[in-house]
Parts: sequence; C-alpha cells; structure tokens
Amino acid sequence: MRFKFSITALLLEVIFIILFGVFVEYDAGSVDLYAYFKDVHVMIFIGFGFLMAFLKKYGFSSVGINMLIAALGLQWGTLIQGFLHGGVGGKIRISIKSMINADFSTATALISFGAVLGKTSPVQMLFLTLLEIAIFALNEYLVMEILQATDTGASMTIHAFGAYFGLAVTLILYRPGLQNKYENKNSTYHSDIFAMIGTLFLWIFWPSFNSAIAAEGDKIKTIINTYYALAACAVVTFGLSSLLDQRGKFSMVLIQNATLAGGVAVGTCADLAIHPFVAMCIGSIAGTISVLGFRFLTPVLASKMKIQDTCGVHNLHGLPGILGGIAGIIVTAVQPETKRGVQLTVGRQTAALSGTVGIALLSGALTGAILKLSMWGQIPDQNCFDDSAYWEVPEEEKLPEILLNNYNEHSRVESTMWTFIGCRI
Amino acid sequence: MRFKFSITALLLEVIFIILFGVFVEYDAGSVDLYAYFKDVHVMIFIGFGFLMAFLKKYGFSSVGINMLIAALGLQWGTLIQGFLHGGVGGKIRISIKSMINADFSTATALISFGAVLGKTSPVQMLFLTLLEIAIFALNEYLVMEILQATDTGASMTIHAFGAYFGLAVTLILYRPGLQNKYENKNSTYHSDIFAMIGTLFLWIFWPSFNSAIAAEGDKIKTIINTYYALAACAVVTFGLSSLLDQRGKFSMVLIQNATLAGGVAVGTCADLAIHPFVAMCIGSIAGTISVLGFRFLTPVLASKMKIQDTCGVHNLHGLPGILGGIAGIIVTAVQPETKRGVQLTVGRQTAALSGTVGIALLSGALTGAILKLSMWGQIPDQNCFDDSAYWEVPEEEKLPEILLNNYNEHSRVESTMWTFIGCRI
Amino acid sequence: MRFKFSITALLLEVIFIILFGVFVEYDAGSVDLYAYFKDVHVMIFIGFGFLMAFLKKYGFSSVGINMLIAALGLQWGTLIQGFLHGGVGGKIRISIKSMINADFSTATALISFGAVLGKTSPVQMLFLTLLEIAIFALNEYLVMEILQATDTGASMTIHAFGAYFGLAVTLILYRPGLQNKYENKNSTYHSDIFAMIGTLFLWIFWPSFNSAIAAEGDKIKTIINTYYALAACAVVTFGLSSLLDQRGKFSMVLIQNATLAGGVAVGTCADLAIHPFVAMCIGSIAGTISVLGFRFLTPVLASKMKIQDTCGVHNLHGLPGILGGIAGIIVTAVQPETKRGVQLTVGRQTAALSGTVGIALLSGALTGAILKLSMWGQIPDQNCFDDSAYWEVPEEEKLPEILLNNYNEHSRVESTMWTFIGCRI
Repeated sequence: MRFKFSITALLLEVIFIILFGVFVEYDAGSVDLYAYFKDVHVMIFIGFGFLMAFLKKYGFSSVGINMLIAALGLQWGTLIQGFLHGGVGGKIRISIKSMINADFSTATALISFGAVLGKTSPVQMLFLTLLEIAIFALNEYLVMEILQATDTGASMTIHAFGAYFGLAVTLILYRPGLQNKYENKNSTYHSDIFAMIGTLFLWIFWPSFNSAIAAEGDKIKTIINTYYALAACAVVTFGLSSLLDQRGKFSMVLIQNATLAGGVAVGTCADLAIHPFVAMCIGSIAGTISVLGFRFLTPVLASKMKIQDTCGVHNLHGLPGILGGIAGIIVTAVQPETKRGVQLTVGRQTAALSGTVGIALLSGALTGAILKLSMWGQIPDQNCFDDSAYWEVPEEEKLPEILLNNYNEHSRVESTMWTFIGCRI
Repeated sequence: MRFKFSITALLLEVIFIILFGVFVEYDAGSVDLYAYFKDVHVMIFIGFGFLMAFLKKYGFSSVGINMLIAALGLQWGTLIQGFLHGGVGGKIRISIKSMINADFSTATALISFGAVLGKTSPVQMLFLTLLEIAIFALNEYLVMEILQATDTGASMTIHAFGAYFGLAVTLILYRPGLQNKYENKNSTYHSDIFAMIGTLFLWIFWPSFNSAIAAEGDKIKTIINTYYALAACAVVTFGLSSLLDQRGKFSMVLIQNATLAGGVAVGTCADLAIHPFVAMCIGSIAGTISVLGFRFLTPVLASKMKIQDTCGVHNLHGLPGILGGIAGIIVTAVQPETKRGVQLTVGRQTAALSGTVGIALLSGALTGAILKLSMWGQIPDQNCFDDSAYWEVPEEEKLPEILLNNYNEHSRVESTMWTFIGCRI
Repeated sequence: MRFKFSITALLLEVIFIILFGVFVEYDAGSVDLYAYFKDVHVMIFIGFGFLMAFLKKYGFSSVGINMLIAALGLQWGTLIQGFLHGGVGGKIRISIKSMINADFSTATALISFGAVLGKTSPVQMLFLTLLEIAIFALNEYLVMEILQATDTGASMTIHAFGAYFGLAVTLILYRPGLQNKYENKNSTYHSDIFAMIGTLFLWIFWPSFNSAIAAEGDKIKTIINTYYALAACAVVTFGLSSLLDQRGKFSMVLIQNATLAGGVAVGTCADLAIHPFVAMCIGSIAGTISVLGFRFLTPVLASKMKIQDTCGVHNLHGLPGILGGIAGIIVTAVQPETKRGVQLTVGRQTAALSGTVGIALLSGALTGAILKLSMWGQIPDQNCFDDSAYWEVPEEEKLPEILLNNYNEHSRVESTMWTFIGCRI
C-alpha cells in the first residue's frame, strides 16, 4: 500500500493545484451563507466521520479516511461542478455557495464509504471518490439543469445516489468469507457512544443541510419542516426499536441511524409549502422504513443478494432517499409549485428519481468492477474491519488479550502437570 | 416495557401529528435568530446528553433517552406554548423564535432527568416529559405574562424549575436500597471525558442560551455578561475544587458541573446593564455555592432527606437558579429598568422566584406520585444505573469480568486440589 | 499543591474582578462578529482541549487544565489588550471583537501548554498563562501597531509565538529522567479518537479563526484561502504519512496534527489576494514540513537539544508559523498591498517575524527559569503524564492491572509449590 497510496494521493494533489491555478478564481460574493456552510462542514467531517466510528477496531479509519475522502473530494468537487456549471469566461468562481456544493459532493462518497466500510483500502477509496464525485456532478446537472426537477435537500441526488452507488460497489466487491459472523464487525460500549457524537451533530444541523442552498425566502420553511420531520422520526424510531425487540430493548444501531432518516426523506420537498404536519408524516414514515430495513432487509440483502452493507446505508440513505423522491412527486402532483422560474411536474420529478437511482446503480457497479482489479491489492478477509491493516495502532489495547492468552497457557500447563501428579501419587 | 413504551411513544406521535395538522402553521418570520437556535440545539442534544454520560454503564441512556425526551418534548412544547400564547386566529405560528422556545421547554425535562437518572424507565420519562413541559409552560406564562417579571436567560423558569421539579420527583421515588454505595454509580476514566464534551459545549454556547430571546439591543450585553460570568465561575471552581480536597486534587464532578453554574446564575439579569464585573461576581458566587453544594449538601440530601440527586442538578441548576432569581431582585431594587414596556419591580421578581420554586416542588411531587403507580413497572434496584435494562449492550465490555470470574473459579478449584494433595502427601 | 494553587487562582480572580470593576465597560458594538467568535470559542475549548487528550492517562488534565488556562487567560487577555490599545477615556470597552481577541490571546498559552504537557503543575500553568499572555499582547502591539505588519490569521503572533515560547520553557524545564521511553507518554485507541474530536473541530472552524478579525471585505477571500489550504494540507499529510512508514501505514499523531498545519501557515496572508492555488501550495508545504518535523526533527530535539515537546507544537505551530511569516514576506514582495491604510513592506514583515520568534524564545526562557524555582514544587518524573497527580481518578480503570498483579502473584506462589511438591514426590 505504501507507494500506491502515497504516490496517488500526492500526484492528485499536484494535479488539483495546477487545475486550480489555471481555472479557479475568487468570486466577489458575500459571506451570508457562511453560517450554513459551517454546519454542513461539521456534518461532513464530524457527523459522517463519527457516525461510522461504531466499529470496535475501525475508528481510526472511520474518522480518518472520512477526513481524507472529504478533503480530497471537496477539491475535486469544486473543479467538476465548476466545469459543468460553465463559469464566467471559462473560469470557475469560488463563493461560499460553491464551497457548500463542494462539501455536498463529498457526502455521496462518504455515504458509499459507509456501505463498503472495512472492506476497501485507502487507495481504492481515492479512486471511488474521484469516480463517484464526477458521476454525482453529472447526475446532479442532469436533475437540476436538464430535467429542472427540485431536490433542494438532495434526498435523491446525494442520499439515494450515494447509497445505491455504494451498494452496487459492495455487491461487486462481494466477499463470501465475510458471511460468517465477524467479531470485528461488532461495536463496543464506547465506540457506540463515539458514534452518537456523529448522529447528534448530523441530527442537530440537518435543517442547515436541507436549507443551505434553498432560496432565501424558502429557508425558514425548510428549517421548520426538517426540524419537525426529524423530531417525529426520532420518536417513532425509539418506539419501533423497542416494539421490534423481544424484550423491548432499544438497539443502538437503530438509534444511531434511523433517527436521521427523517432528515433525508424530507429533503426533496422541505422547501415547499407542505405544512409542518406533512413533514412530520414524512419523518415518521422514514423512521419506520429505516427501522424495518435494518431489522428485516439488511440481513436478507447480505445472505441472499450478496450485498454486504456495513453501515446499513440502504436504510439510512437509500430507502429514505427514495421516499423523499416519491414525496416530492406526490407533493408536486397535489400542489403544483414553481421553482427557479420553472413549473415542477410529476414527470420531471419521476425522471429525476428513477434516473438518479439507475445511474447510481450502473456507475456504482462499474466503479466496483474497477476497484476489483487485482492491481489494487485487496486486503484479505481476516484483515477487514481492522485498523491495524492501515494504521499504526497503540499496543496497549491488547492487554486483556495478553491476560487471556496467559491465562489459557497457564491452565494448559497446569492440566498437564495435574495429570502427571495424578500418575505419580 | 416492550408494549407500554412503544405504544405510548407511537400513540403520542400520532396525536402530535394530528394536533400539528389542525393547529400549526408557518410564520412568515425571518431566519435572523437561526444562529442562536442552533447553539441552543447543540446544548440540548449534545450538551445535556453528554454531560449526563459520566456514569460507567449508563451512557446509552444518558445520550439516547436525552435525545428521546428532547425530540418528544420539542413537539409538545411547541403545542403547549402555542396554545398558551394565543396565536393569530386560533393557529399556532412556527418561527425560529418558537423553535428556540420549544427547545428551551425540553431543557426543564432534561434537568429533571438528571435528578432521577438511572432510576426511572423510558416510559416513565415520557410521562414526566409531558407533565413537566405543560407545567413549565404554565409557570412561564405566569412569570412572563401575568407577573411580567424578567428572566431572559431563564435562571428561574428553566433552571430552578427543572431542578426543584426533578428533586421532588426523586424524593417521591426514593429507593432506600440505593443508599449503599453502588458500583454502577461511579464513572470511568473515559466516561468522564465523554461528559466533558457535554460540559464544554454547554459552557461555550451558554452566551447564546441567555441571549437567544433577549431583545435585539440587549443581546451584546447579555453575551458579554455571560461570557465573563462563566470565565470567573470556572476559575473559582478550579480553585475551590483543589482547596476542598485533602490532597488538593481536582474533582471531575465539580469541573463538569460547577463551572457551568455561572451561566445559570447570570441568566435572569444578563440582559440588564449590570456591568461586567457584577456578572463576574455572580459567576464566582455561583461557582462557590455549586462546589459547596456538591461537597456538603448532596450527601446530606441523600442520607437525611431521602433526595437521591444522581447528577447533582440541585447544585448546577437549583441553587444557581435561585441565586439568579435573587440577583434579579437585587438588581431591580438597585437600578430600576423597563423591560418590554413594563417597569421591573422587586415584588414581581420575588413573586416570580418563589412562585416558580413552589410550583416546581408541588407539581414535581405530584408527578412523582403518578410515576410511582405500579402500572409503570418500576425496575428493581439492582438494575438501576445500568443500560442493559433497556438497551442491547455490546457483550465484549464484559471481558475483564469474565477474566476475573475465570480467575476466581480457577483459584477456588486449585485450593481444593492443594488440600487434597496435602492429605495425600 | 492544595493551597498554592487554590489561593493563587482565587486571588487572581478577585484581582480580575476588581480591575474589571475599575476599568471595564460595555461597548455599544454590534453582534455581527458573534458567529466568528463562537467558532473561535469552540476551537479554544474543544479544539485545543481534545487535541491534547491523546495521552493515555492525561485526558483530564488536557481537557480540564486547557479550560482553566483559557477561562483565566481570557480575562487577563481582555485587561492587558485593553490597557495596551488605550481605550476611550481610560476605559476598556468590551465588544465581540475584543472577546475574539481575548480568546486569541489564550491560544498562545494553550500552544505552549502543548509543549510542556504532562510535566508542569497547575500552579505553574497559572503563572505561565499570566506571563505569556502579557508578553504576547506586547509583541502583538509591536507587530500590529508599531511595525504595522499584517498577520490577520496570526501565523506569527499566535502560532509561532506560542510554539517558541513553549519550546523555550520546556528547554529550561528539561528533565533528563524522561528521556527513556515512558509508558504513559503513549496514547490508547480511544484517547486517539478523543484527540480527533479536537483535530476536526480545529480543522472545520479554522477558516473562522483566520477571518474573524479580517476586514469585512476580505473575509470571503480569507475563508476560501483557508478552506483550500487545509484541504490540500490534509491530502498531503495522508500521502506523506503513508510514504514515510516502512509498511505504508498512517500515523495517528500525524493525522491529528499535520493536517492542521495548512491553517496555521496560510494565516498571515489569507486575507490577501493570493489566489486559491497559492493557498493550496502553502497548505501543501505546511503539511510537508509538519510531517517531516514530527518524523525527523522532534526525536533530534529531544535527544540532542534537550527540548521535550510533548505534543509536537514545533511541528504544528512553530515551523508552519514561520512558514506563514515567510509566505507573508514573499507575497508582500511580489504583490504590494495596503492594509489598514498602510503599505505592507518586506522590511516590516521580516521584522515582525524575526522579532516575534526572538521575543518568544527570550521571554519563554525567562518564564521557564521562573517556573523552575523550587517554590513551585516540581512533580517527580514518575508522576509526569499522569492525571492522578492532580485529579481524583476513577479507580475502576485499574482492573486489568489488578488482574495482572493477581496473576503474577498467583504464578509466583504456584512455582514455589511446584518446587515443594517436586521435592516430596
């Protein structure tokens, strides 16, 4: 991994700097959106990073590689989005809004990272990031500029896209050896609490995520809708988590993830005048399908369909993203609105949703096939979900293990001795 | 717990959605206050949640049930506050300010949660949340609208109210079996550091808490007063923590809690022109009584008065809240001001303080009596302070325990064998 | 420590309150900068605190003493900066901007705290804070008012100053006994993840740090430059971290620290029209020298030059701070600009950089000599890097140790017995 990864990363950075030098300029915009940018920034680096840190031995990679993907991706996203959206006189102009969009673009790669978490190498993630962000930008251009659909909170273009892209990648990278229960795929008490840091910062700032690029006059509606959708979603998730457990106990994986599904699902239509109680309905349904997905669908996907979705992104981003798209279609059908000067139509919204999922699945499968090439040097199954494959890990953690080994060795020696004494006495 | 909790939670959500559908509309307000809302939101979900995560085996509940209470409570608070404050044409209008007030209302239930932490079930907390937020809203209406007292940072209406409500509940729910020292009531090294995440986010954003609903022109004063009150309080807390320990060592429970007392105590008069050095005096006194409360009062309350205050909310919210009320009375007496068009008077402020504490104690005792009904199925003492009563907890945490048991069993067998050999040889 | 520390802290607080009473008044400023203040506040209390929490047994001190230093320092900084900058009619006027500057002033003491972390007592840190903040304010006055140099993001006046001051202190306080590898100087798996909380909040909010006191019209440029400098720096750090390891593995200490060097280095010229790609170059070079510093320079400083730099502040703040100063000189030479009505010159910038480093080294050495006086009661080497010297630490942490001791004792007894049996049989 030493040279493959480092040469790739350093070379990419050199290329980015050159491209920035040639194509990028400051925009004379205002800093009004900076407050929204910062919240999105916290969600990307703290939220996504810590949410994935629930695994016992994969916290360094979750938080660290999350940072790497986002830092790399935001530069690449700036360039790709800039090229696509034209730019004045061939130049890409950087404003706070373009920084928000750059951060957004990295979210797709981070969602896909959740699907393959523990099974890919850092160098594979570099290429996944490059490919996915490029395709995301193309798909977003298709949805926003060509189809002229609405998706302000990006239920479809970020969440569904990132999830189905990642699921297709993980399907292609299927590892039969990981079907057995893996000790390292579990969480620990403290790793679950670290993950709650991610959950809560995502939950808290989600209204900013959905409203960041909403029109000025729509921001307040977007914030209100997202706030109540998330609140309803959280209560429903707690209720169902207890209901579906035989002893009525809460499940951390559900609380960490399904509580956020409301924010995903309300994204597409959060800036429409849907009424707060409709937002709460969307949030409640999102929590429900997310909980059901984790309980019933994820095991089936893994065992029957060879889709090993480490973080359950299908339940947090995939299904709620589709729900968001469908909600957008229904709202458009019921109550026609105009966005950015264009009449929203059921047809445009439906095309946006199906196009996004289709493109994500196809391009994800293609990306998976590229990542499967032997040149990347796949890690063996037994090193999956283990930071020590890619990180220097402090040794002290192994103390209990040492004790256990000592103890076992001790018992073994003793048994032999007892047998020996038994013979003598 | 399975059906009691889940049916209650899901039913409540359905009722909320219906009530929102009937009564709630968007307000055409601006997003100016959104920056303050977000800070309060972080304090409610991260601040309160992690502050309570100091217990060895109760981190899931602290962070998780905190989220549940707040997500449920903010919907309920929106409705109750909306009904009380009238609304235009019978409708409740949602603005950023009403969202801030909704978040505020949940703070009372979260403070009371700190008093009963580890001793109540989630279903009991649902009912506590409903009852407390309703009574809080009534008391706040009394203080602000009828008495027309000032309490911008809510020293009285949130902090003192939440604390004395919770103390009354915990008195009624008294468990003699918990008087003995409980292993699970301790912290661990890392749980104490998790708690500091809560402490620091509360400390950092407290100026926003106190200024969120202050008049536009008073915000800067409120921010400055809270900032310096907290700084003085923190230094005094460190000084006293060392002074009161025989070996001069700092106590984590004091640093986690008493450093925040200055923010509580300066709340009532933070938006008055009290001068920064007066704010620092209030902060210093708050730190002092908080430290003294933890050291000397809490043990007495537990042993003599049957008040088992798990997080010491009396010292963080109760006493500093009363101090805040008294400071408000003194400031009003010394330097009469006009707030919202009304002349502040010593009488109104005194009535607000004593009324708030009285209502909190009475309604808390009543709520405690309701929560004591056998229909809720109290958990046995030995399951208190233990997440595994309500959560699926990762197993691996028990490794050291397994080792210890193995080791003890091993020693026992060996002793028997030695005796046996002794007889033979 | 009991009386020395507590009397000092409490006495200082009394003095501060008196000085505030005599000299400090509210300023009638706006709250416009409050959004920037809050980010800086998070960086100071969460960012610096958790970044230093990587040590196995020093998390309480890192997070707690960080809070103490900052809470004390911001009051002292307010006074010192206020006295230096005159004030209207002999009064110091508090605005959000002065609060930002007060927080900034504490950053120097926190950086120096990183250099001596684990080796000084809390009472020593009180005096270091007082001395350093006073000298920082003088040096800042020299740089900004007398030399009229530019250093908006404070690469020189905060980062280089804090680092070289701290390095001089640690040189004077040199402890030969700590040269051997110390078990407690290591991290644990979870302490490294705690540290990443600090890293990420610093990384996320660094654009606010650099732009907080930039002129309104320069803020957007400053934010953009810092954002891309950090992104480039992070990618380069990951690349080099892998490249420099024999097995290509990432090093947590590098990811925690060197990823931030870009924010430090771009500080001086972030508000100049340097073009984003130049910011990225500066960030990349900063990451490179920071990584190289950690790998090659820190061991040499410790073994050859008696500079024991616990957190490696030389690599995060020292070298990148100097780089920032040099970048400022070069930019000034290439593209002359006017700041605050004054033409920037190479001479002024060079004088600012060399003056800052010189003053930091001299005053740091002097401060070290004062802290070395026997009256402070140095802790013995074996208590270094151990919270239990100054904090009540939860006992449960020692379980594995107990097990190990039990086990060893057990083995010892057993061996004796075997020998005894051997003789008998």
